[in-house]
Amino acid sequence: MLRYFLCAFAILHLSVAIAKEPLVSWNEGTAKAAIVQFVTAVSDEKNPGFVPVAERIAVFDMDGTLINEKPAFLQASFLDFLVDDAIFKNPVFEKDPDVRKLISRQGWKEYFDTVPWASTLKVFAATHTGMSQTLFSAMVKDYMQNNPHYRRNIYVPMRELLDYLRAAQFKIYIVTGSENQFVRAFSEDYFGIPSEQVIGSSWKTALKEEGDMLSIQRLPEMAHSNDKENKVLAIDLHIGRKPIFAAGNDGNAGDIAMLRYTTQPGKRSGFGLIVTHDDEKRESVYTDKNGATLAAAQKYRWTVVHVKEDWKRLYLTAEEANNRALTH
Amino acid sequence: MLRYFLCAFAILHLSVAIAKEPLVSWNEGTAKAAIVQFVTAVSDEKNPGFVPVAERIAVFDMDGTLINEKPAFLQASFLDFLVDDAIFKNPVFEKDPDVRKLISRQGWKEYFDTVPWASTLKVFAATHTGMSQTLFSAMVKDYMQNNPHYRRNIYVPMRELLDYLRAAQFKIYIVTGSENQFVRAFSEDYFGIPSEQVIGSSWKTALKEEGDMLSIQRLPEMAHSNDKENKVLAIDLHIGRKPIFAAGNDGNAGDIAMLRYTTQPGKRSGFGLIVTHDDEKRESVYTDKNGATLAAAQKYRWTVVHVKEDWKRLYLTAEEANNRALTH
Repeated sequence: MLRYFLCAFAILHLSVAIAKEPLVSWNEGTAKAAIVQFVTAVSDEKNPGFVPVAERIAVFDMDGTLINEKPAFLQASFLDFLVDDAIFKNPVFEKDPDVRKLISRQGWKEYFDTVPWASTLKVFAATHTGMSQTLFSAMVKDYMQNNPHYRRNIYVPMRELLDYLRAAQFKIYIVTGSENQFVRAFSEDYFGIPSEQVIGSSWKTALKEEGDMLSIQRLPEMAHSNDKENKVLAIDLHIGRKPIFAAGNDGNAGDIAMLRYTTQPGKRSGFGLIVTHDDEKRESVYTDKNGATLAAAQKYRWTVVHVKEDWKRLYLTAEEANNRALTH
Repeated sequence: MLRYFLCAFAILHLSVAIAKEPLVSWNEGTAKAAIVQFVTAVSDEKNPGFVPVAERIAVFDMDGTLINEKPAFLQASFLDFLVDDAIFKNPVFEKDPDVRKLISRQGWKEYFDTVPWASTLKVFAATHTGMSQTLFSAMVKDYMQNNPHYRRNIYVPMRELLDYLRAAQFKIYIVTGSENQFVRAFSEDYFGIPSEQVIGSSWKTALKEEGDMLSIQRLPEMAHSNDKENKVLAIDLHIGRKPIFAAGNDGNAGDIAMLRYTTQPGKRSGFGLIVTHDDEKRESVYTDKNGATLAAAQKYRWTVVHVKEDWKRLYLTAEEANNRALTH
């Protein structure tokens, strides 16, 4: 019996030591204090804010929240690469003047601002579908391996936040406008998040039979566009219960619905976190055109993370990025 | 340091003791032996069949696999209850002769065999949609609490199998033709499976805003019918990787595609298990009309569980069913 007590004590001691310094890249301030206060409360059985482990669900937007999205978000860079590739010199590209404009390589920022979404979608469909999920996944993995510098766009403070929540037994989902199969190719490596905890946009699929082998084919029609209100519907479809922690970013109003849903009054009112990109020295500065995200943050009392003030550093050094052992 | 060794030894010793008698309600035979051999291999790092924990994904059909589905599957009983309720004396029911036939209470078996699916779907839509996900979930929970005898339809040997796989660090999903929100209301209680590991059929949904509150409304149009090939597409959408263990049942050919997908040759060729209901004394006897499931089991070398020979008992005693502590 004594042996078990010693054992329990030793394990407790060890885990406290490991968890001693969470969020080291965060400056002391209201944002860090609010996060620590919330996570401490949900983890403490004696606290009125205690939440059972099974309900400790967290949802994170990806582009602009976990990783830099300017000048191009990850999947836009991948699209860029595919369009460049000779095998995708597709006749469909020639017929639509907007598509021609898109592939004339004027820079992605301009493409996405000036070209109708329907044309952009044609380019996505022509490059991203018509193959199996397995082949597409291999294409993405290959691309990411050949472009290891993208690892350096991951926000170090947000990775520490993922680690901190995992230590408090949260199950963390990425809820992203990017495509699920795209993100799943690197979510474990980049963020420690397994494929089944990635919820993204998706194409329609069909089962194809060749001989005795089944494969899942990607069809050129979107099944789900995972943005704004649709993020809430996808959380309900995939998780089936309300998260207690949601993190998104200021920039395109994409995360307001997801944070409102997570933080609205009810049996459990969750924690909302918005990253606002206000640091002109260390990354691009941008915000919602109409200020909707910051207005919602104020109205619903979400915690706003100011990159400039709240983060000691943004990125891994090159050396750290190459050392996979450090990266979660 | 010695303390840590003692501690590791004590924990190891304890967990071996707990796991000593898995599958106690299974008779010794080829089915049990095949299961034990597979699970032992994937858990043993020195075995060529070893599979890392993250890839230990198992998928289980529900009706007819984890729980008795004759004479009525669970959601059909719930539908029965709703149709009976005065608030659902819906004018839409009066116009369609097939719907009138359905609600004329001739018994569910006959309904599902003789009435066009479109009419059945109308009755499902009229009773199952037009409310929020939260309200629907409360309705199901209330119904299940008022009908505790359904707990006794859970197959004890299959619950032991779930426990055995969980002890070997499998993440287990229910992949069911029943509706996800319906099953999520009791999946944790019945099977120890959390809501986010339930993949089922689903209705279209929409976000509704009342004052400052958001709710998810159930619309009277199916988004996904989770049967046959669609089960594979749903596994891909929700999990994003191939399971290594799939269990289904003989009866309506609903699990053939899921098992083929799981067990086909590739990086990992998984384990397929089919329950066939051949025990005329202890439950209903039934099989596929054309023998498709058993033919596929033979062709693809799946393990067939014969209820009559392989299971010592099917159900919990009334006393056990009332004792929640026993039920996983």
